[in-house]
Amino acid sequence: MSYTIGVDFGTLSGRAVLVEVPSGREVASAVYEYPHGVMDERLPGGRELKPDWALQDPQDYLEVLRHTIPEVLKAAGVSAAEVIGVGTDFTACTLLAVKADGTPLCRLPQWKEEPHAYVKLWKHHAAQDKANRLNAVAAQRGEAFLARYGGKISSEWAVPKIWQVLEEAPMVYEAADRFIEAADWIVWQLTGRETRNSCTAGYKEIWSKREGYPQEEFFAALDERLRHVVRDKLSGDILPLGTRAGGISEAGAALTGLLPGTAVAVGNVDAHVCVPAVGIDGPGKMLAIMGTSTCHILMGEEERQVPGMCGVVADGVMPGYFGYEAGQSCVGDHFAWFIDNCLPAAYYEEARREGRSIHAYLRRKAEGLAPGESGLLALDWFNGNRSVLVDVDLTGLILGMTLQTKPEEIYRALIEATAYGTRMIVETFRENGVPVEEFYASGGISQKDPMTMQIYADVLGMPVRIAGSKQGPALGSAIFAAVAAGKAAGGFDDVFEAARRMGKVKDEVYTPIAGHADRYDRLYAEYKRLHDYFGRGGNDVMKRLKAMKKQAK
Amino acid sequence: MSYTIGVDFGTLSGRAVLVEVPSGREVASAVYEYPHGVMDERLPGGRELKPDWALQDPQDYLEVLRHTIPEVLKAAGVSAAEVIGVGTDFTACTLLAVKADGTPLCRLPQWKEEPHAYVKLWKHHAAQDKANRLNAVAAQRGEAFLARYGGKISSEWAVPKIWQVLEEAPMVYEAADRFIEAADWIVWQLTGRETRNSCTAGYKEIWSKREGYPQEEFFAALDERLRHVVRDKLSGDILPLGTRAGGISEAGAALTGLLPGTAVAVGNVDAHVCVPAVGIDGPGKMLAIMGTSTCHILMGEEERQVPGMCGVVADGVMPGYFGYEAGQSCVGDHFAWFIDNCLPAAYYEEARREGRSIHAYLRRKAEGLAPGESGLLALDWFNGNRSVLVDVDLTGLILGMTLQTKPEEIYRALIEATAYGTRMIVETFRENGVPVEEFYASGGISQKDPMTMQIYADVLGMPVRIAGSKQGPALGSAIFAAVAAGKAAGGFDDVFEAARRMGKVKDEVYTPIAGHADRYDRLYAEYKRLHDYFGRGGNDVMKRLKAMKKQAK
Repeated sequence: MSYTIGVDFGTLSGRAVLVEVPSGREVASAVYEYPHGVMDERLPGGRELKPDWALQDPQDYLEVLRHTIPEVLKAAGVSAAEVIGVGTDFTACTLLAVKADGTPLCRLPQWKEEPHAYVKLWKHHAAQDKANRLNAVAAQRGEAFLARYGGKISSEWAVPKIWQVLEEAPMVYEAADRFIEAADWIVWQLTGRETRNSCTAGYKEIWSKREGYPQEEFFAALDERLRHVVRDKLSGDILPLGTRAGGISEAGAALTGLLPGTAVAVGNVDAHVCVPAVGIDGPGKMLAIMGTSTCHILMGEEERQVPGMCGVVADGVMPGYFGYEAGQSCVGDHFAWFIDNCLPAAYYEEARREGRSIHAYLRRKAEGLAPGESGLLALDWFNGNRSVLVDVDLTGLILGMTLQTKPEEIYRALIEATAYGTRMIVETFRENGVPVEEFYASGGISQKDPMTMQIYADVLGMPVRIAGSKQGPALGSAIFAAVAAGKAAGGFDDVFEAARRMGKVKDEVYTPIAGHADRYDRLYAEYKRLHDYFGRGGNDVMKRLKAMKKQAK
Repeated sequence: MSYTIGVDFGTLSGRAVLVEVPSGREVASAVYEYPHGVMDERLPGGRELKPDWALQDPQDYLEVLRHTIPEVLKAAGVSAAEVIGVGTDFTACTLLAVKADGTPLCRLPQWKEEPHAYVKLWKHHAAQDKANRLNAVAAQRGEAFLARYGGKISSEWAVPKIWQVLEEAPMVYEAADRFIEAADWIVWQLTGRETRNSCTAGYKEIWSKREGYPQEEFFAALDERLRHVVRDKLSGDILPLGTRAGGISEAGAALTGLLPGTAVAVGNVDAHVCVPAVGIDGPGKMLAIMGTSTCHILMGEEERQVPGMCGVVADGVMPGYFGYEAGQSCVGDHFAWFIDNCLPAAYYEEARREGRSIHAYLRRKAEGLAPGESGLLALDWFNGNRSVLVDVDLTGLILGMTLQTKPEEIYRALIEATAYGTRMIVETFRENGVPVEEFYASGGISQKDPMTMQIYADVLGMPVRIAGSKQGPALGSAIFAAVAAGKAAGGFDDVFEAARRMGKVKDEVYTPIAGHADRYDRLYAEYKRLHDYFGRGGNDVMKRLKAMKKQAK
């Protein structure tokens, strides 16, 4: 038998899955929590961090490999010789400063107490002022790259984070030979060779296959000291997804127990890597990864500029296609906010009496409601709007309450609002020439919440297919590992074939309920009108209130 | 010593207060709950009522007199001879069908099981279709009276209720010699003589001092059988407030223990009667009676047409002035809805641990917030908008939520929304030539909720004076009783002097906090913009959602 291993590096832990090739059967999995977790208050040595910081210790990532890979081999009774490849995926943009040999600066004694020497996690939000200045400069210079990112570079991405290092800790910037995505760094640790992947480079580092990085004049316009940042600290050598980054090095073998020379795929991003895991093998099939927030991934044949998308990247998802990414910044988080803040004590008591979880209790009440029955409509902007308005200063809205309004009605209205937000994204892609013909969902909500998935099918007017694996990213990484190994070694030469063979969806498909479509069309029309009124300048009350809020504090 | 007694007939009980004249000192009070309460599900005999019905048994009102008047006399050690007058006030329009001698039809054996033979309480809402047809006919005929009522006759008022009797129980209509407000009926029971007062006639029966009732042609256009309803079933003999209706009859004396001949004031309405109780003695001084909903009463020197008011009535509050009424249909009800439906269990636990009521706990959290700090804004339309939009189909809105939004922030936003709604009413009066120079508050919220009253002062930019009595209506009735008795008997000849001498406010006045005014001006401007957008046709989404809701059910 042949096997591959996929390792998914999340926000709090890493997970390895051992997968049989070519069946895609998941044989064993293991999780390892990062000992340092997310450092958002202080460094291990005690130094306090400012608000909005979020760091990690890269040693934790190595510990994941050290623990989980031997564990899955042992659990499955599989020998290292049977493993033909390893693939990894990571949160992104999760960035670190390293020496030329890959050593993270934070491992060096002189930088141990320096926050900027650690990994800046994707949700490190302390570079917002840099992102604002970058966007202003880029707009002023008419930089064409802005259009690839829906008009705005996020503070979560690489250039604002690197610029923050330069401004706040110029010595660290100086000492860093490379700034590298953790996605690429972990591959470097396995293979002993620095590679960069087209996904993180394209979505997070303003790189494009056709245009490369922004010009030096642009970086110099930000700060003269950034003029040569690409030449000096990054790399123009970007490999498409599905490429073999190299073989396991001696050090990599010592760390993982795998055999030296075992194929390692280039780095990948935890969202994008899910696409082959549901068997998607081409354009027109949108995958929504639904958790606290939702990420939408879609491939297209052509490069289109779609307003409000997070990025369009050649080879960004699978080689040969343009990968489009969109997002909703608050999905499961909405529902959690509601449950934490808005549920009456009586509901908890009743749920306890019935022996149900509060979620199950609430869902059962909400399930009984017909579309439109509550008279409520919400805007899903409790954490701003990522797509298609790209505006963090928008806020939530609920409308239609009466004295008879019940908590489960508000709960359902919040779920429906996120479905309307998804439909807005789907329709925006279509209106801009990027077809969306099928809809897939993965992530926690897709697995645990049938009511929500049915609402999505009804609102979208499309069948919704559900990921067949609960560990989509790790399975996706294992699929890319099989491609990195190649057909000759028992894997695949072609990621599309690998996706078809190893990816999977559940048998059960959520199909739109006849009779719901018309009502949801009317409700969506109302959503759209409010969306445009509050989101496109009809009434900027949300921004003015947010400004007052800052003043008042 | 001289005393008067005021009796306030509320929705669930009646309250008598014995008041010293001329000091206004409240010497004793007694409450008696209606044995039948509000009948909204079935008659005493078991017959089921349809939705939206709300009936009472008039015998309950007599029981109030029978119990409470002797009780206050006894408690105070005052003899009947020392009582110079009695005044009463009632909910309105609370209407009943009676025989020529005042006997309610429901007291007759043949009508005992007939719902239409009972008192239709103010909140009997089953005549909405009659009100709709009435308004359409009136608009079509260009009836001038519509302008006196903000453009719409409410389904709560007399003509729709009478018309409902005619349509649904023509035999009852036939058998009724009179339709009469409970406010006037109770005076009839005391004096043995039918009188009608200018307040209920003006606000609830479409009567005006100058124009009288609508013409017979109007009634005939509704239904030919209504052509002579005024001549046959009502009365054109309307007495201004402050008038002596008569003296206590023998039967009245037997019922109450008062002496025959004791002065009885004409009937009054529980809201309007509060005006002299806070010492208001003329125009420009608005009183807000704040409870589950709020009623605003204001006098003016001239008759103006103010959009969205509930009515303007000559002698409607005090003789010689035009009485204006406006209202907010949902005030305390908002806060109760929120507490019942939206408070997390943790808040109840914490309140219990601190030994506070949930209201006190929540208020303490909300008090700490600065204006604008929450970033939230709400529209106070959970029960529609009474003034100035006069639209029951509007619904609530909350805007500005983030994942950090806390329950106390929403709670405060709902309170602020009702304050903005009040300011909208005040400004609408001013813009239409009716001055509002002082602001008074009575009712439960004014007595129990300092935070809310401070917010009102800040939002209005005016000092808010608080009623000195917790039993404002009964005190007001006692003041009118002193006027009915007259100066020669130890009372007053002039209600204005009586109000100044017997009415009272608390020493503590809520004055606007410097620094809050500017922020609340900005927030009010945002409220107004949303108010007009959703309330004046910019986006009728609330109505469309409500229509869908009805369909869905």
